[in-house]
Amino acid sequence: MVVVMQEGATEEEVQYVINRLMGMGFDIHRSTGARHTVLGAVGAKVDFDTRDIELLGGVEEVLRITAPYKLASRHFRPEGTIVTLGRGIAIGGEELVVMAGPCSVESAEQIDTIAASVAASGARILRGGAFKPRTSPYSFQGIGQQGLQLLRQAGDKHNLSVVSEVMDHTQIPQMIDYVDMLQVGARNMQNYNLLKELGKVAKPVLLKRGISATIEELLLSAEYIMAGGNYNVVLCERGIRTFDSYLRNTLDIAAIPVIKKLSHLPIVVDPSHGTGLRDKVAPMARAAVAAGADGLLIEVHNDPEKALSDGAQSLFPEQFEKLMKELRVIAPAVSRRL
Amino acid sequence: MVVVMQEGATEEEVQYVINRLMGMGFDIHRSTGARHTVLGAVGAKVDFDTRDIELLGGVEEVLRITAPYKLASRHFRPEGTIVTLGRGIAIGGEELVVMAGPCSVESAEQIDTIAASVAASGARILRGGAFKPRTSPYSFQGIGQQGLQLLRQAGDKHNLSVVSEVMDHTQIPQMIDYVDMLQVGARNMQNYNLLKELGKVAKPVLLKRGISATIEELLLSAEYIMAGGNYNVVLCERGIRTFDSYLRNTLDIAAIPVIKKLSHLPIVVDPSHGTGLRDKVAPMARAAVAAGADGLLIEVHNDPEKALSDGAQSLFPEQFEKLMKELRVIAPAVSRRL
Amino acid sequence: MVVVMQEGATEEEVQYVINRLMGMGFDIHRSTGARHTVLGAVGAKVDFDTRDIELLGGVEEVLRITAPYKLASRHFRPEGTIVTLGRGIAIGGEELVVMAGPCSVESAEQIDTIAASVAASGARILRGGAFKPRTSPYSFQGIGQQGLQLLRQAGDKHNLSVVSEVMDHTQIPQMIDYVDMLQVGARNMQNYNLLKELGKVAKPVLLKRGISATIEELLLSAEYIMAGGNYNVVLCERGIRTFDSYLRNTLDIAAIPVIKKLSHLPIVVDPSHGTGLRDKVAPMARAAVAAGADGLLIEVHNDPEKALSDGAQSLFPEQFEKLMKELRVIAPAVSRRL
Amino acid sequence: MVVVMQEGATEEEVQYVINRLMGMGFDIHRSTGARHTVLGAVGAKVDFDTRDIELLGGVEEVLRITAPYKLASRHFRPEGTIVTLGRGIAIGGEELVVMAGPCSVESAEQIDTIAASVAASGARILRGGAFKPRTSPYSFQGIGQQGLQLLRQAGDKHNLSVVSEVMDHTQIPQMIDYVDMLQVGARNMQNYNLLKELGKVAKPVLLKRGISATIEELLLSAEYIMAGGNYNVVLCERGIRTFDSYLRNTLDIAAIPVIKKLSHLPIVVDPSHGTGLRDKVAPMARAAVAAGADGLLIEVHNDPEKALSDGAQSLFPEQFEKLMKELRVIAPAVSRRL
Repeated sequence: MVVVMQEGATEEEVQYVINRLMGMGFDIHRSTGARHTVLGAVGAKVDFDTRDIELLGGVEEVLRITAPYKLASRHFRPEGTIVTLGRGIAIGGEELVVMAGPCSVESAEQIDTIAASVAASGARILRGGAFKPRTSPYSFQGIGQQGLQLLRQAGDKHNLSVVSEVMDHTQIPQMIDYVDMLQVGARNMQNYNLLKELGKVAKPVLLKRGISATIEELLLSAEYIMAGGNYNVVLCERGIRTFDSYLRNTLDIAAIPVIKKLSHLPIVVDPSHGTGLRDKVAPMARAAVAAGADGLLIEVHNDPEKALSDGAQSLFPEQFEKLMKELRVIAPAVSRRL
Repeated sequence: MVVVMQEGATEEEVQYVINRLMGMGFDIHRSTGARHTVLGAVGAKVDFDTRDIELLGGVEEVLRITAPYKLASRHFRPEGTIVTLGRGIAIGGEELVVMAGPCSVESAEQIDTIAASVAASGARILRGGAFKPRTSPYSFQGIGQQGLQLLRQAGDKHNLSVVSEVMDHTQIPQMIDYVDMLQVGARNMQNYNLLKELGKVAKPVLLKRGISATIEELLLSAEYIMAGGNYNVVLCERGIRTFDSYLRNTLDIAAIPVIKKLSHLPIVVDPSHGTGLRDKVAPMARAAVAAGADGLLIEVHNDPEKALSDGAQSLFPEQFEKLMKELRVIAPAVSRRL
Repeated sequence: MVVVMQEGATEEEVQYVINRLMGMGFDIHRSTGARHTVLGAVGAKVDFDTRDIELLGGVEEVLRITAPYKLASRHFRPEGTIVTLGRGIAIGGEELVVMAGPCSVESAEQIDTIAASVAASGARILRGGAFKPRTSPYSFQGIGQQGLQLLRQAGDKHNLSVVSEVMDHTQIPQMIDYVDMLQVGARNMQNYNLLKELGKVAKPVLLKRGISATIEELLLSAEYIMAGGNYNVVLCERGIRTFDSYLRNTLDIAAIPVIKKLSHLPIVVDPSHGTGLRDKVAPMARAAVAAGADGLLIEVHNDPEKALSDGAQSLFPEQFEKLMKELRVIAPAVSRRL
Repeated sequence: MVVVMQEGATEEEVQYVINRLMGMGFDIHRSTGARHTVLGAVGAKVDFDTRDIELLGGVEEVLRITAPYKLASRHFRPEGTIVTLGRGIAIGGEELVVMAGPCSVESAEQIDTIAASVAASGARILRGGAFKPRTSPYSFQGIGQQGLQLLRQAGDKHNLSVVSEVMDHTQIPQMIDYVDMLQVGARNMQNYNLLKELGKVAKPVLLKRGISATIEELLLSAEYIMAGGNYNVVLCERGIRTFDSYLRNTLDIAAIPVIKKLSHLPIVVDPSHGTGLRDKVAPMARAAVAAGADGLLIEVHNDPEKALSDGAQSLFPEQFEKLMKELRVIAPAVSRRL
């Protein structure tokens, strides 16, 4: 923390601030300039509230100089993290990992048909929701536990690992045997009781960025999981809220290189939720790969017009197949393969 | 829903859209203008996805014409809702209801001292957190169950009702006997499993608006609780995220008259979290009352410099006393009393 | 500027940064902590780009520690600025100054009728647009020069000073003899050629905050005017863009106490543009006064349904009269009079 | 426009609205449903204010159903517009057009060196600022007229067309003979007097999106230019403001496919201003091309550390060369060449 004192701050005020900082456990370096006294407060402490100092007499400004997260920081593992999911799948390595499937698991036939199709196009992980967080209480809320079983069966049959969303820490036990990765949705990015419990689980977590979360907040949420001992976290950009109403969300493609610099965790992109409209999914999936994403999460449905949720943003299988071909053209430009 | 067809849309395309809308359960009114065909789709349905129609051939634009919530709408109870909490407290009536207390319950002495002080100044409800959602896993997380008991004792002793935050549906049973109102924090505004369980509870709920939630999303979250049977919901504006970094959040004072028009539910304002800095609390509390809020939620601490959380935004008891006097000047301008 | 070096930065990297900073004209204070070296760079320089240092080898983070404006800063005139406009009008003093009038000057009769009415209710300044910036090229663009003459006549007749918007530096000469204060609209807040010319003018400037400008950017725009020698700048909050689409803009009431702390310039509020709907104007005008604004800018029209622009946000004269009465109740709570 | 009347609106209220709409020049289609009366108002009118109807008695909601722009709409020229600049350069065709050069023209030697370098790497247009809009009055403001001459000479020598920014309509005459395209900066996107004058000019205009402008507002600004008769408008995405502070702006890559659908005008992307940091330029340039942009605008400087403005976001010539090679890999994936 750096504390800039006001011009004209008294020596008493400076001493009061110094004592307060030392009481918080910091070592203090004092610089006295022509106009300002500047105090550098350093130490191992990660958790403090800069406002506690901001309000003291004679203080002009307080600046945090270290990130509020440690385990999620690039410094912690400069070489980068690779999250493995069995079947030779490694997120964060040279291979781009594509996860695909319907928004919701609807029936055995539906999930099997889609799984066969996306596997044939080159997807490695099958996605599908069993528990659905919906903005309206009157919307379809998922088929629950049975959906997990159907997802597992379809994945095993077509050599795909599976990922599904957990809405609540009480759902972890009923999900853990069916999925290879647990997904935390954007609305739950700061559901701390859920994050804490996921820190104790021996499976990777796919953590989606909240709709107006900063990158720092996303990394702090990853820190919650990692602080519990589970370091297998995959971050997911899925669109932020901006003023343009044409699309549901604005996919923050620039977050990819930023996160690559700040953190060692892999970052994948969900262009389906990130746009909300089918015809925008392929351009944004291509953009994500060109910007350096480690993978993609894409909604595909064999009959989108009849999908029970989010049909409008699901690709037809032929569109997904075409997209995968385009991505194979782009991948070498970023030293990747697919 | 109103569907505007493109200029040059074929009759086949129009018919396809009409059939699709009828299949979704709507009655259709067709208007054929010089350039556009416009379809009005009306019916009792509340849940549908306008994007399903947007993607059909020949469609220019689709507009939702009814709010996606019913029970939270002003139409449902044009006269307005008054939420009562015992001790003659009625939120939404002529009296402005002020809730005050520390961010976190820290000890028996602390909560008793503060309760005595805010009661003397005219507060009617005591606030205090026992379970604390914190952005960093390394921050103080509250003293838990014991905090609820201390809060209850202090409230009873000083004739104050009490409110405290519930982070998770599993905490409801351990809280329900200690509090008069359950608070849902901003980060949990879309924790749907929590909202559903609160719909079954026989106590009022204080629902805080998420940091970048629209008013419509806030009302949809209220709808989740009401759909479960619990109509005693008090909405709370506590600051939205904007581009200015000087304050933690930007208190959306304009949301007060907007919500008053759209909904029958009472709306209170939290200027402590809504600004994050002590010296901005009083101006914004006055503004909230002047704009028509039904009440306030204010952090007060007897020794803010030593508070375990959010000391920087807590008023000293004398500041709270002074603020209450100013509010008594303003109240008659909006036909209220305090 | 404070430069935090990375853990493990080499002595060569540190020296390179120090030399670069000295080349930029700064004095350097070096603190070497257990993990980080921190460099404090101080000096009289106001203009520099922190990114130039951020990109150097071994640099972790760069933080600006002084505001990029000087003349607009509270330090420059701790006692606050009062802008006078003749007729005993002083913005920033104890009296709340209300400016009122139509969006556009439409005719001699219209402006005279409205001027008479707002003067009777207690307004001190008459507003009215002659040159209108409109989002659409097909919208009414104002009656131009003639409007200024009509505005002046109506003001003189009813003992009101007058303010009108200048869109462009070429319009200054034709306006300067007709108005007592020149208004810069939100879209022109960063029209630097206009701001520079206004710095040479001997009349006060009413500078509106851009729709998504930060407070720092607003103060930098004021600095442009002041750097030219014109210190009579009145700031105006008129709504920022947020995600809620119910109102045109979200009036940032919290900006009032923030600006009061950061700057010595008076701050007034425009609840008409700040909300865009007539029935929201009074609540927000009351809130602005309760939060400490120095004045208000309110659209009033004798026949809003026939107004050539922004009729929807114009008050009827009776509504304005009622509002002024409410404000007289509130003013004493903030030690003001009206 | 579609007007939804409230449940329980009286026949008188409905008739009043109908009469008002007819007075505004609309034809009315009335649909009477079980609960709502819905009025469809159609006609050739482009400019109206929906709020004028929203405020009438008995009105629930008013929805605009046609875009407020005509000439900029995709309907106007479904086949798309190609803007030519001589030397065989065509923006909007199969070839990706790359514009490159320094932020500011600084000297004859500087601009010549950079022009030679970017031409060798495949750029077709030379960029460089002579008049610089700067947030701070204390920043370098460009070398003015002389810069235009140097830019022209360097362009001619290296077979590059040239583009430079116009800040103000009074600068057009002194620029028009030196540049092949006039650039409107983000801060001037709604400088209507400038846009109107550019409508009368016989050279293409590069129109940058404002930092928090919606796509609709960008297209309305293009409409201003086109309404004057100049249809050669190239749109430019250059980053929007979001909550993340790590980068200066967030490049809205999704705007590319959205604009391609809404408008016939070409769209290029500026990843230099769109990120503000050199190491983020290449990932975002690749993403822009992968998403379907018609071209790029990239800052390149031979000695960025000594650049008089925006050195931090300028590529070194070698980085630009490397980027161009990567783009040549990606282009075929979107049926383009470079």
